[in-house]
Formats: sequence, structure tokens, C-alpha cells
Amino acid sequence: MKLYTFWRSTAAYRVRIALNLKGIEREEVFVSLPGGAHRAPDYTALNPQQLLPALELPGGQVLSQSLAIIDWLEAAHPKPALLPADPLERARVLEVAHVVAMDIHPVNNLRVVQHLAKNFGADDDARQAWMQHWMRLGFDAIEPRLAGTRFAFSDTEPGLADICLVPQLYNAHRWGLDMSPWPKIAAIGVACLALPAFADAAPEAQPDAG
Amino acid sequence: MKLYTFWRSTAAYRVRIALNLKGIEREEVFVSLPGGAHRAPDYTALNPQQLLPALELPGGQVLSQSLAIIDWLEAAHPKPALLPADPLERARVLEVAHVVAMDIHPVNNLRVVQHLAKNFGADDDARQAWMQHWMRLGFDAIEPRLAGTRFAFSDTEPGLADICLVPQLYNAHRWGLDMSPWPKIAAIGVACLALPAFADAAPEAQPDAG
Repeated sequence: MKLYTFWRSTAAYRVRIALNLKGIEREEVFVSLPGGAHRAPDYTALNPQQLLPALELPGGQVLSQSLAIIDWLEAAHPKPALLPADPLERARVLEVAHVVAMDIHPVNNLRVVQHLAKNFGADDDARQAWMQHWMRLGFDAIEPRLAGTRFAFSDTEPGLADICLVPQLYNAHRWGLDMSPWPKIAAIGVACLALPAFADAAPEAQPDAG
Repeated sequence: MKLYTFWRSTAAYRVRIALNLKGIEREEVFVSLPGGAHRAPDYTALNPQQLLPALELPGGQVLSQSLAIIDWLEAAHPKPALLPADPLERARVLEVAHVVAMDIHPVNNLRVVQHLAKNFGADDDARQAWMQHWMRLGFDAIEPRLAGTRFAFSDTEPGLADICLVPQLYNAHRWGLDMSPWPKIAAIGVACLALPAFADAAPEAQPDAG
């Protein structure tokens, strides 16, 4: 299996955590976003959308979209499970995962912020305010859904909500957001990063970190 | 079951289609976005995120996030299936669903466009250009993934990709996007809307359409 990744891509970070939790070995191919390697012909041939991550399966098929990749991992490598079996509990985990993956992350994506700078003249301060605004709304939606367990929905096993929250916390730190209004989310980040599966997936721990 | 919906909400439109395809009866509660009913205390108590849709289950639990709701429907009411059983085929459907639900829709959400107008002075033309820009990128990513079947991944059964594409096509039409560069996507829209499950879920067919 081959993972196309960039250390600072939060979507790639999610997949790195999922692969680590499931103990799946892979080769990693580093695609530099600031270097424009995602727009180069070889990567575009693999993923015409030019977004990270992509996962090349042993059969040569290439999957994109972090949560579609993780869904495939969950089906093909079910242990340990990243989602509960009970439909309602599963929906509760997906709700939180989707607040991050649909309500925060896409609006804060690199290409959106670049578009904002280019087309609306957003300077550094305006970009930071934009990033923080959507994170605040999302974290406000998530915090009351959490019971205060060690991980998002369990005291013993991290799952898909944690996989989405931890990279988002990295981005929150990167953009200078004070997390004190959301103590349960912040505590989950600390608990997760004490586990090698999360710590080894962290941006700073990647060979391409710069 | 009680669905909180607004005729023009494309996320609510997805859930209306899924409920119709599975033949699930529900009461509908209309929450006017232009009227600000999503920010009123009664709806905020149900869904503190103030977004549509929300589904109130017979046991009183309230689910939010359209794709989490549809995941619950798929688990609790498995027939007809909206996703293939094979993990790789399932990932292919999710990839397309997530391009719409993660790469296009969140960036084009009403609250993002309102924020753009308020904070960056985006006028009507700038808002239309913004909407069309993200739709173009998303449709460019989806069109080559489609084989030209009647529905997105089947000649006989629509599924989650169709459920995401059809409301996005409604939005494309609303914002004046010429669909001729993406004939496979456009044809899927026509095929789907020939089915009552889709046609009855369309914005114009809703009792609260104005």
C-alpha cells in the first residue's frame, strides 16, 4: 500500500492515524503542497483532483478523499474498529467527525484561503480571522456533544471522531486559536497524542516536515 | 420520525431523497432559513449548531449532519441499500459523494457566502463567481470518475452519489452554472428526477417552497 501524503495536510494526517491504529504498513510518498508537487503531472495522473491524501492499494487502484479512504480501511481491515457497531452510536461519532470534515476543514482548506487572498485581498490578519471563525463555530458545535471521556466517545478506544479532531487541533494551534473555551476537545487531543498511533502521525514526526 | 427541513437546503434535500428511496414516512417541520427560524430558541434547543437538516427519531434522539443521518438510515433501514457491499465499490461511491459534500457544498454554504459579503464586501457578481468556482472544481473531479451509467454507479439503482449530486445540480442551476462541460453529471440529474423519490424531494415540490 502506498500513501501520498504531506506532513501539514490535515486530511493526510487523518489517514496516517487510521493506518497506525490499524497497524497497517505502507510506503509513504511525499507530495509537497508549497512546492506545487500536487499539481505535477505524475500526481495529477493518480489523483486528477490534485488534493491530498491518496492511497494506492496493492491492486493499483487509487483512492482519494480521506473519509472514503478510512471507510475502505474500516471495511477491509475491520480490527480495531474505528466506528461503533450500534447505528445510533455510530451516527453520534459521524456527527462530530463531519462537523470537522464538512463544516470546518473544507472552508479552511489551503486552496480556499489562497482564493480568498487572491480574489478578495485577504491579508494575514483577515486569513487568520477567517480560519479562527470557522473553527470556533465548529468547536462550539462539538464541545456540548462530548461526555468528557478520555477519547471522544470512549474511555478506552479512540475512533473516527478522534481521528478528525486531532488534526483539527493541530490546525487550531497553527492559526493561534486559544482552545480554553473547549476544554473537553483540548483534553481529547492530549489523551490521543499520548498514544504512538497519533504521535507518530503528527506533522512534526513526518520525514518530510520542514 | 420528524424531519426538520427547508425547501432550498441542499443538505435537507439529500435526506428527503434518502427517506423517499427507503420509503420511510415522516412528519416534516419547516424551518425557514431566510426567516431565521434556524436561530430561534426551539430549533436551537434541538440542534445547537443551527444548521439543517435534523432528524428526530421515534425515541426522541435528534440527529444532525446529512451524511451521518443517511448513514443511520442505511444501518437502521438497510433496504434498498444506498451503498454497495463491496468495500472498493463503496469507496468509489463515497469519493463522489464526498467531493460534493466536502469539497463543494461547505464552501458554498449560505453562512459562508453571507460571511463573504459581510467581511469582504462580496457583491452579487462576486458571490456568483465564488459559487461557480467551487462547483466547477468539484464537477471537474467527478465527471471523469463516472462511467456513463444511468445513475452515478449503476444502471438500475440510485445510491448515495446520486443523493449528493442531484441537490448540487439544483444549486448549479440556481447560480446559473452552464452544465455542458459535465454531460455525465447532467444526464444523471435527468435520470434521477424521473423517479418519484427524487422528484418528490425537489425544492419546488415542498410545501414550504416560496
